Amino acid sequence: MKINPVIETLLNHRSIRKFKDQALTEKQIRILVESAQAASTSSYTQSYSIIGVDDPKIKKQLRAIASDQAYVEQNGCFFVFVADQYRNKMIGETSGESTAVLNTTQRLLVALGDACFAAQNMAVAAESMGLGICYIGSIQNDIDKTSEILHLPDFAFPFFGMAVGYPDQHPEKKPRLPFAAIYHHNRYNPAPDQNSLKAYDQRVADYYRMRTGGQREETWTSQIADGLGRPYRKALKPYLERHHLGLR
Amino acid sequence: MKINPVIETLLNHRSIRKFKDQALTEKQIRILVESAQAASTSSYTQSYSIIGVDDPKIKKQLRAIASDQAYVEQNGCFFVFVADQYRNKMIGETSGESTAVLNTTQRLLVALGDACFAAQNMAVAAESMGLGICYIGSIQNDIDKTSEILHLPDFAFPFFGMAVGYPDQHPEKKPRLPFAAIYHHNRYNPAPDQNSLKAYDQRVADYYRMRTGGQREETWTSQIADGLGRPYRKALKPYLERHHLGLR
Repeated sequence: MKINPVIETLLNHRSIRKFKDQALTEKQIRILVESAQAASTSSYTQSYSIIGVDDPKIKKQLRAIASDQAYVEQNGCFFVFVADQYRNKMIGETSGESTAVLNTTQRLLVALGDACFAAQNMAVAAESMGLGICYIGSIQNDIDKTSEILHLPDFAFPFFGMAVGYPDQHPEKKPRLPFAAIYHHNRYNPAPDQNSLKAYDQRVADYYRMRTGGQREETWTSQIADGLGRPYRKALKPYLERHHLGLR
Repeated sequence: MKINPVIETLLNHRSIRKFKDQALTEKQIRILVESAQAASTSSYTQSYSIIGVDDPKIKKQLRAIASDQAYVEQNGCFFVFVADQYRNKMIGETSGESTAVLNTTQRLLVALGDACFAAQNMAVAAESMGLGICYIGSIQNDIDKTSEILHLPDFAFPFFGMAVGYPDQHPEKKPRLPFAAIYHHNRYNPAPDQNSLKAYDQRVADYYRMRTGGQREETWTSQIADGLGRPYRKALKPYLERHHLGLR
């Protein structure tokens, strides 16, 4: 099969964690957001918002929340993707309808999905324009503070950020799990092939060794196992409950 | 700004609900899944699985769950995107580590995000290949049955399906909210411009009128308001709780 320029862009993805000191233009931001908006949206609800952050003070605050990662502050623009039911709540209230649906797990899932589909479209659009991106989950480290900084109302959840800008590094592609570990045929296969997983571990170890000049020795399975013992961001569930985001 | 072929593909999206009777090839499925895998994944956890369904019996069962929508059965291939922590749970258990993290809201959000980023990449790849797609949220209508049909273990949640195939219809693009209703600058703007929302309602009404030959008269805000009063899919929260999917 001939690989087209779109699939080439997709397969060529790597996260960028160092950007040149060059702001995105308004035109670039517009095309990124319009690309995001073109993604599918569950039942046409468009239950998400995108906040573009270029105010240096706000960026600095978000960086402090996000484990002090420099690229949260230093980039072409920082976007926050919000699972957003506030807009639709206002529409319901204006029309005098009940808004009972919004505070349900079903609708929370819809809003989370909408935010992600839009974000991934933005990521793809950015990379096609020669920009780099990095998703930033760690704005959730202090979800209350993030929400306060961005003046979020109830019914809105800041799911993740995305740093976008001109790449100032050229990392290798990070190896993905073997096809057969992700893909199942007609029914879930609970037992991925152990040999292919071992080979994958080897590839990941090689990747880290190369990236760090031999400083980091780590397989994928060891990294996964290490992360499973210490729950964190325990404020997320109370946040969702307090802001009417549907755990019911 | 010059629009490149990638952004053209993104902006050109429309959901397809009628497919030709032509199955995807194994090669096509491979490139779709590999495109999906290339998406970002939170903390490298790769917490998702993709189940490709081509067994006519299973497709028929899923169609029955999904409000009897014909295109769930009739397509080139039907994919189910699973927010999947089972794989990583097995890895943790094999290594003797605690797996306490998996049953937290934080990790549920990670798995949901990973499934969405992968899915949206697949959607973009498919459309770049001349295929059409439609997300299918309604496999959640009977989440227990969907899970049973696909033999899903605990720690795995079938988030949505995606019908992919050769389009047998050419719908118009569905209008999206005005840029200013989705995009906020530095802080959340709780009051979208009412005039631009009215103009948008008019565009949506025109779209439906054209698509249905005048049969359907509906604005976007009326559609949103109508859907807010009747909670449904109430089994989702108990499902997540019962299958150790982290509402804590």
